[in-house]
Amino acid sequence: MNIEEIKDLRQAPVGVFDSGVGGLTVAREIMRQIPNERIVYFGDTARVPYGSKSRETIIKYSRQILRFLQTQQVKAIVVACNTASAYALDELEKETDIPIIGVVKPGARVAARETKNGKIGVIGTEGTIGSQIYTNYIKKLRPEVSVIGKACPLFVPLVEEGLLKDPVTDEIAMRYLSELIDVGIDTLILGCTHYPLIRSTVRKIMGEEVTLVNPAYETAIELKQLLTQKGLDNPEAPHLGTDRYRFYVSDAAEKFQRFANSILKYGILSAKTINIEEY
Amino acid sequence: MNIEEIKDLRQAPVGVFDSGVGGLTVAREIMRQIPNERIVYFGDTARVPYGSKSRETIIKYSRQILRFLQTQQVKAIVVACNTASAYALDELEKETDIPIIGVVKPGARVAARETKNGKIGVIGTEGTIGSQIYTNYIKKLRPEVSVIGKACPLFVPLVEEGLLKDPVTDEIAMRYLSELIDVGIDTLILGCTHYPLIRSTVRKIMGEEVTLVNPAYETAIELKQLLTQKGLDNPEAPHLGTDRYRFYVSDAAEKFQRFANSILKYGILSAKTINIEEY
Repeated sequence: MNIEEIKDLRQAPVGVFDSGVGGLTVAREIMRQIPNERIVYFGDTARVPYGSKSRETIIKYSRQILRFLQTQQVKAIVVACNTASAYALDELEKETDIPIIGVVKPGARVAARETKNGKIGVIGTEGTIGSQIYTNYIKKLRPEVSVIGKACPLFVPLVEEGLLKDPVTDEIAMRYLSELIDVGIDTLILGCTHYPLIRSTVRKIMGEEVTLVNPAYETAIELKQLLTQKGLDNPEAPHLGTDRYRFYVSDAAEKFQRFANSILKYGILSAKTINIEEY
Repeated sequence: MNIEEIKDLRQAPVGVFDSGVGGLTVAREIMRQIPNERIVYFGDTARVPYGSKSRETIIKYSRQILRFLQTQQVKAIVVACNTASAYALDELEKETDIPIIGVVKPGARVAARETKNGKIGVIGTEGTIGSQIYTNYIKKLRPEVSVIGKACPLFVPLVEEGLLKDPVTDEIAMRYLSELIDVGIDTLILGCTHYPLIRSTVRKIMGEEVTLVNPAYETAIELKQLLTQKGLDNPEAPHLGTDRYRFYVSDAAEKFQRFANSILKYGILSAKTINIEEY
């Protein structure tokens, strides 16, 4: 590669994908922590949710999205979905040379480092919890630690219904979290990208003493390190304009835009619908 | 056709499809009301839910399912999903000679007949309510009637989480239904196939005076009439065995079976996974 090509590559966008809107919490952290980087975001809104689907299906969907992101000349990919990170990350890595990171390892690593009493809780979708991915990864790092997983299938619909601070969400959270409190965990991983949006509810129920780990935050840190390490970080802030952050979805672009504009500080001018099954 | 072919056709199964498990409430009514009929059920569990997806996507998915059901030699098709009935029924009718009925018209017809004060409420998914399909159809029958639609996006996840009789479901139902009570409706259409499963909650909140219309029930009546009219009804009870009711899904067959066995009296021996995108 000559200097121009290297410069082009460093200015290429980072691909970020999720089953829907949840991964926007990861995109938001990347925007905050690495403002120089451009982003191409894909939300699979036609096939959301991933959390209750099988491993085979998630791998198939993730492969299609990888092929789409490759057409967008991304320099790195963030799997901003816990379920897809759990099921498909290894398969995707076999198919491309583009560096790929998921949200699971960065979150697991921080939790393993932070726990003092050796009891870590993980909350997530049925898919993420059923896969035991957090447990397996944490146990590799610290075999003596115990990990207690709890699936919380109602959290995503509650967040998408906008009940971020609401007695109903409090009540459901109380039911889901009570067994984690009983076990006496000192660290809790918010193992689904929607969950940072109800962080204050979880904080209230778990109390101030429990460390909450937000994988979105840790993933942005890891992405920054990865890009720097590989000489792929963008040294210049991109020109302002719509091209800095591009959003694609597989369905219902307007609804996506409304949700995105409610949680991002940067206004989304438009989200474009593509037919992901063609990839 | 000779007599043998006609006999074969009358013994052919009825195709019933839905985005997932919800349509099982329709299948259940068919089993109860027309026990002679065989059923091939398809639940699109890989792409559930339909309620928040766009018209174009629902039509595409429904066409694929139609093609699958055609390979199963069905003699009639029931679109046991309100969203697909709202968006795709007309398109499907253009593509086949097999008689097709949806759940919307039977429900709308009964509501239009039953209301005394001319105020009908409809609850359903965002897709069904946004499509205004119930309103349009009722207005065709009785233009003077007013129809008030209310989307209830949390009902499906609450049902699928098993919270059929639960204070949280009561609270959410109270919020969704209060404006229908304020308007003074005397008839309420349960415009989503999951909703009959929380009928007692809805009954408690709406009171005994409001007529609850269950489109699943009305659809089974209409199917029976249609089959008789066309000479397609099966005069003999089919032999007992797994072939009487066949279940196909696009993902997560085990989870489907568990749910099906919790609401059907007839044990489901197995549900088979197919790749619906190939159709």
